[in-house]
Amino acid sequence: MNKLKSLFFLDPEVVFLNHGSFGATPRPVLENYQDWQRRLEKQPVLYLVRENQEHFRSARKELASYLNTDPDNLVYVPNATFGVNVIARSLDFQPGDELLTTNHEYGACDNIWTFLSQKKGLKVIQRHIPLPLPSKEEMIEAIWEGVSEKTRLIFLSQITSPTAIRLPVEEICQRAREAGILILVDGAHTPGQLDLDLDELGADFYTGNCHKWLMAPKGSGFLHIQPEHLDLVDPLVVSWGWGENCPYNNDSRLQAILEWWGTKDPAAYFSTPAAIAFQQEYDWDQVRTACRKMLGGVLRKIEELTGLPSIYGENEGSFIQIGAAEWPADWRPESLQSWLYDVHKIEIPIIHWEDRWLIRPSVQGYNRQEDLDLLVKALREYKKNVRSKR
Amino acid sequence: MNKLKSLFFLDPEVVFLNHGSFGATPRPVLENYQDWQRRLEKQPVLYLVRENQEHFRSARKELASYLNTDPDNLVYVPNATFGVNVIARSLDFQPGDELLTTNHEYGACDNIWTFLSQKKGLKVIQRHIPLPLPSKEEMIEAIWEGVSEKTRLIFLSQITSPTAIRLPVEEICQRAREAGILILVDGAHTPGQLDLDLDELGADFYTGNCHKWLMAPKGSGFLHIQPEHLDLVDPLVVSWGWGENCPYNNDSRLQAILEWWGTKDPAAYFSTPAAIAFQQEYDWDQVRTACRKMLGGVLRKIEELTGLPSIYGENEGSFIQIGAAEWPADWRPESLQSWLYDVHKIEIPIIHWEDRWLIRPSVQGYNRQEDLDLLVKALREYKKNVRSKR
Repeated sequence: MNKLKSLFFLDPEVVFLNHGSFGATPRPVLENYQDWQRRLEKQPVLYLVRENQEHFRSARKELASYLNTDPDNLVYVPNATFGVNVIARSLDFQPGDELLTTNHEYGACDNIWTFLSQKKGLKVIQRHIPLPLPSKEEMIEAIWEGVSEKTRLIFLSQITSPTAIRLPVEEICQRAREAGILILVDGAHTPGQLDLDLDELGADFYTGNCHKWLMAPKGSGFLHIQPEHLDLVDPLVVSWGWGENCPYNNDSRLQAILEWWGTKDPAAYFSTPAAIAFQQEYDWDQVRTACRKMLGGVLRKIEELTGLPSIYGENEGSFIQIGAAEWPADWRPESLQSWLYDVHKIEIPIIHWEDRWLIRPSVQGYNRQEDLDLLVKALREYKKNVRSKR
Repeated sequence: MNKLKSLFFLDPEVVFLNHGSFGATPRPVLENYQDWQRRLEKQPVLYLVRENQEHFRSARKELASYLNTDPDNLVYVPNATFGVNVIARSLDFQPGDELLTTNHEYGACDNIWTFLSQKKGLKVIQRHIPLPLPSKEEMIEAIWEGVSEKTRLIFLSQITSPTAIRLPVEEICQRAREAGILILVDGAHTPGQLDLDLDELGADFYTGNCHKWLMAPKGSGFLHIQPEHLDLVDPLVVSWGWGENCPYNNDSRLQAILEWWGTKDPAAYFSTPAAIAFQQEYDWDQVRTACRKMLGGVLRKIEELTGLPSIYGENEGSFIQIGAAEWPADWRPESLQSWLYDVHKIEIPIIHWEDRWLIRPSVQGYNRQEDLDLLVKALREYKKNVRSKR
């Protein structure tokens, strides 16, 4: 996998084990992105008006095919946080309505529900899933026990951000459909890690990032909405597309109200097909398999070093390219991230989640076994330093 | 001014007289923009976290100095439509509250108020300003007569989009302040055409585009808020910045809630200082003066051709780089725009506004007198075609 590293812009002096936070875009994809930007500058009216819908249509079609769904129910949005906001702000929550979620969600999204609890009296029901993880069935029950007659929406990450675990989204979608409760899935970390089949999953609303594990440029994400809910959605940014005289001739109301909001360059959307093609060209299934193996290895070594059990408990091995291992709270975890970067140029997030500290390595195609060995070596040194100073 | 043309990416085969719709970015500014994008890719965490606020701070400082205001009251937003949405959605309109505006505003922004009239019962009071324009004093009165006890917000463009006229924003700001009524100014077309002094103007809220006449990359606009209103503003996209645990260490609540909304590349913001520097380096004051003269000339020639009076009436000469002239409704105006482009490769908007049709030429540094001569020649040909077929 050594050869893949040269296909990225990443600083060779940095051991980059944090693909999970923002992703990284391969050179050919970034070049495609910047070509679109220059194309805009060559004839802005051609790009942003006359040929605009053709480019959107083609970019949507490629993404829809990748996600196994119909392009008519799909819109590009800048990122998953934006997608969650669209749905959260569109639903007409009444005081006392309940939002059911877990204690593993992304902080920015937790803020959305807190905002709505202040503005609209939404009640947030946060179900607790312990670490190490119980069995999948116990996770499903732990979530579902939070359902009440007031449950208006279920909100779950498919792969969680702070803890890098997989939530039983497929099963909850199934139950939600049977119970007639709306569900919004946050797939910020999913496309590019898991093969998605949005039609089979059947979530009412699904949002994801393309910039992360699919490695599209920053600014590309999507929102998928089941056809029966299309009329329910409001724009976050009201512009030409909302109203009767949209000059942009969008394909559908959904696309009109959500994809055009004042002048901005859709280059990140238009270059998303290049990101999909890149992963196909470089046989990313195989890359992912190798990454997963390396990730499993490094998590095990960290667990050996700390003596703490795997956070995955009864779901051992359920990670793909992003995972987490606990670091002892009395081994100075609060300084570990900056120490790793300042002393060893290792970029990796150390996350304070509830009363635990988690090391969250990502392994992507540009990483080598050597990167993970350097991490383990550095952690060993840190452990030694911490313990010798007692 | 011939030399300036080579500093843009614009297709040499197109006579580009539509800077007004989307702007155009000079090569050195676009290169700076794309450099920032590659810098992100070199070390995403450095760019988007550790050094992020430093870059934001520096970009805000340059823009604030250009706009004659304090960076603390200024945030970057993607464009003016976004800025108008932020304020429109933050104000707690009650049923029957009135929004005072004119019949010359941008259609996308008209939609925002219509949206709020449906959602919140906001009443839109649209004051009529006739063409040709009356005196400035009559315009001020025409607007101000719409004020009532229910007026919650005044919304005016400083330079209008469909009609390219200047509204008496300074005087209305002054009166609004005296009357204690909030005012939001849409400066979509202003920065880069007019020298702004936001502190002297004293609008409660002012939003503008940097991508248009300042020629920054697409995706750069700003919102300025008087310090006493800072707490009144809600985020459009709730994310990390709203809430108590913003990991991005923003400079102020305003900047925290509005500038960070999930992963997106702020490169368009960071390269805005390069756009300001470009205009300084190439003596844009002089460029503007020359453009204005050429624009005046072409508008006069169109008026001679049509026999219709200048739309500027008693405000003759109040345009700068964007202007409009009427085209007779019975001279097939609905086909004129596509004919000019298809037959002569002249890109210029023909706008249907109320019962009139307006030709809206823009003149920017890359234009030459020859471009305008080609337009007049083509219009003469169109006139001849139309009239011979009667």
